[in-house]
Amino acid sequence: MKKLINSPEGVVADALAGIAAAHPGLKIDYANRVIYRGDSPVAGKVGLISGGGSGHEPLHGGFVGLGMLDAACAGEVFTSPTPDQMLAATKAVDGGAGVLHIVKNYTGDVMNFEMAAELAAAETGVAVKSIVVNDDVAVQDSLYTAGRRGVGLTVLLEKIVGAAAEQGRDLDSVADLAAKVNSLGRSMGMALTSCIVPAAGKPTFDLPDDQMEIGIGIHGEPGRHRVPLAPAKEIAAQLVEPILGDLDFTGAPAIVMLNGMGGSPLIELYVMYGEVKAILDKAGVPVARTLVGNYITSLEMAGCSVTVLKADDELLGLWDAPVSTPALRWGV
Amino acid sequence: MKKLINSPEGVVADALAGIAAAHPGLKIDYANRVIYRGDSPVAGKVGLISGGGSGHEPLHGGFVGLGMLDAACAGEVFTSPTPDQMLAATKAVDGGAGVLHIVKNYTGDVMNFEMAAELAAAETGVAVKSIVVNDDVAVQDSLYTAGRRGVGLTVLLEKIVGAAAEQGRDLDSVADLAAKVNSLGRSMGMALTSCIVPAAGKPTFDLPDDQMEIGIGIHGEPGRHRVPLAPAKEIAAQLVEPILGDLDFTGAPAIVMLNGMGGSPLIELYVMYGEVKAILDKAGVPVARTLVGNYITSLEMAGCSVTVLKADDELLGLWDAPVSTPALRWGV
Repeated sequence: MKKLINSPEGVVADALAGIAAAHPGLKIDYANRVIYRGDSPVAGKVGLISGGGSGHEPLHGGFVGLGMLDAACAGEVFTSPTPDQMLAATKAVDGGAGVLHIVKNYTGDVMNFEMAAELAAAETGVAVKSIVVNDDVAVQDSLYTAGRRGVGLTVLLEKIVGAAAEQGRDLDSVADLAAKVNSLGRSMGMALTSCIVPAAGKPTFDLPDDQMEIGIGIHGEPGRHRVPLAPAKEIAAQLVEPILGDLDFTGAPAIVMLNGMGGSPLIELYVMYGEVKAILDKAGVPVARTLVGNYITSLEMAGCSVTVLKADDELLGLWDAPVSTPALRWGV
Repeated sequence: MKKLINSPEGVVADALAGIAAAHPGLKIDYANRVIYRGDSPVAGKVGLISGGGSGHEPLHGGFVGLGMLDAACAGEVFTSPTPDQMLAATKAVDGGAGVLHIVKNYTGDVMNFEMAAELAAAETGVAVKSIVVNDDVAVQDSLYTAGRRGVGLTVLLEKIVGAAAEQGRDLDSVADLAAKVNSLGRSMGMALTSCIVPAAGKPTFDLPDDQMEIGIGIHGEPGRHRVPLAPAKEIAAQLVEPILGDLDFTGAPAIVMLNGMGGSPLIELYVMYGEVKAILDKAGVPVARTLVGNYITSLEMAGCSVTVLKADDELLGLWDAPVSTPALRWGV
């Protein structure tokens, strides 16, 4: 295992220290492993919290800041944070307007966020709503999930819902918007290689040199099928066609993310995006906004995922609104 | 070789198509493989051009846009662009105030940019000045270089000098500023793994599982020495100490970049940055601005580099000025 770490057991704490050092505008609660925007809680604003296992950076800590999340809870690598972490974050970000939990659909995350919401209600009376993101069209259930997994759409949802909260919308409105975004986005991913969880010290799975895994999740959990390596154009088709088959994306402006899984160089992600865009053009899906890069990763896994969100003027306006986080920043 | 590409020979053209699709604000000259900002040439503004081999993305194409480069010439992977490409770009970006060539110190790049400058002078009378960036403290000469290599500082220089050009400074002033930045910045890199050049199809070098290469360049060319794998804290010391030994960085605000070589996940880059920052704190180097991420890469190489720039109020002001490019964006 070749990694830039001090020890497998110290990775998450050391990364939090690095995030604190790099981004003095954020506040870190090391005991609870929560990253906060510096001015949290913001009075009168709905607080937005997400979190999950570490190893998907910049998700979620890299999306904390003005116009996006108020707090992100960091679990161990590929392990859900605890209800205690989520409860601490919920209390801390409440500015009097309630808190929305943004939860990727993985069994542990869902269970722990539910418990945190119950504890928050019982202990403090903070109003909490939740959105469970489930955009992955690859598999219906998986090793870690009942129903579809929550993957790349989480990034777009955090941006759009974050902008709405920043505008001062109330909790019901923000939660409704989150449900709307979730209903309109779809994702699909693939891997060329496995990743290595530091504590495990060896690849999560073996993938022969001439094969790739289509429909993989963000923890190296199995996907739809293993197929022979193929050119970028064919990979793009294998990712985009299931997405377009699941929802009619024609006739509305799309926000598209071509996401790297962590180990694929940007030159390859651009090659992939060119092929994805060509397919969308041919299918009559007008692309209005694009993100290409590593936004929700699986450690050093080589591969990529595609997310398409069927937007409208409201969603585009919220997308374009100012944001200032470590990983997404514009207008500020 | 597992890559998200259509063919080894098509990588650069396909990536340019993807960049064009993702960033409609840029213009692409496919014949010359030059990426331009959409409003180029900007009348009265000094034009800034850089370029080099592909495989270092987002450098340079990802830094084209308002407040940074006017154009970037893309060579084949790890191969200098030709003088013809650079000449075409020089002519195209001239807004009447002359053109600055930003050249990383690699023999091919230096030679070809010199030839392009001579051709531009002879054919068109466009005033051209050049800055050759040579910030790598690892080695004095290398396989591809006379003198020190030009590496991570190029990113910071393009940002700072780009802001100065945007302010309307004249060519002499912009070139002087570039020389100032170059004199005040130092870098050092390391690799855990090799990369694979698509046309070669196999790793550029072999690095045993228990070793790392310190002082490596951005093409997999050898560095200072191979040493046993070490914890992040020791790797940080091996990178930062040669930098601090080469220039006195105390007492001035530093701009620091912790750069990933392309294949290392962001969680590891943050672990590394935490260690780098601790060393700088101890050495009395006050860090004023930070970048952590993949900015000048070596395909899918795992590893990182550190760049430290000794700044002042002028440089910090230019750093903070608005920028709008695919890879760096703020204030717009």
